[in-house]
Amino acid sequence: MEAALALARQAAQAGEVPVGAIIVRDGKVIGQGFNRPLTGLDPTAHAEIIAMREAAQNIGSDRLTGCDLWVTLEPCAMCAGAIAHARIARLYYAASDPKGGAVEHGPRLFEQDTIHHRPEIYAGICEREARDLLRGFFQERRA
Amino acid sequence: MEAALALARQAAQAGEVPVGAIIVRDGKVIGQGFNRPLTGLDPTAHAEIIAMREAAQNIGSDRLTGCDLWVTLEPCAMCAGAIAHARIARLYYAASDPKGGAVEHGPRLFEQDTIHHRPEIYAGICEREARDLLRGFFQERRA
Repeated sequence: MEAALALARQAAQAGEVPVGAIIVRDGKVIGQGFNRPLTGLDPTAHAEIIAMREAAQNIGSDRLTGCDLWVTLEPCAMCAGAIAHARIARLYYAASDPKGGAVEHGPRLFEQDTIHHRPEIYAGICEREARDLLRGFFQERRA
Repeated sequence: MEAALALARQAAQAGEVPVGAIIVRDGKVIGQGFNRPLTGLDPTAHAEIIAMREAAQNIGSDRLTGCDLWVTLEPCAMCAGAIAHARIARLYYAASDPKGGAVEHGPRLFEQDTIHHRPEIYAGICEREARDLLRGFFQERRA
């Protein structure tokens, strides 16, 4: 999660909401990303999406079977849907997101009957560090 | 919707589930895509995502305010989430998708309290043509 937090800090430096993500397979990082919809001119450019796309290119398959996703914020509906499509094995996230999260909030996507894949889910890892990073970012922008 | 159906046929020719999408602003097509996760090695490469990414690059913004999305199948949770992020004004879709759809099925994303944007939604346009295309594709693969 420290690697994902480092990526989140890169997002903040670029003026983007600080969220970072990595994909790990067999102990090796095969994809990484930080949130960049504004600088990338791309509404889908969340950290998780970028990391999953990179990992899929690296392993030569649209399915990331056996891969772990580490991300600093609870995934939104778009990212949770992509996680299901990619067949991510284990999802680890730091801060929960009552406003935009879709795992333990809102649509609770992995609890839906129609979801075609559910990863193992581990929440709250380095939660305080991720939350402080987000709070600091928004406080600075309001100042 | 005819343009989106033509894109869906391109997907089928490539061996991908036939779904096509276009983005229209002021009567002009500014983005298009067809479903290609397998050939693109990309779990996020649904028609809508590709079309929205292209449109955002074309207009130089991650927000597709005032834009219409025409797609041949009811969007899934990933795509519906992206539609909300992109601030799509109007969503037109053809066939409904009881298994994977997230607009009128499953999480019904745009009816969630936490959704930050709801487009106007028009369903069932050229429904039979889109459904026949999907059915034909799956029947051929099972044969």
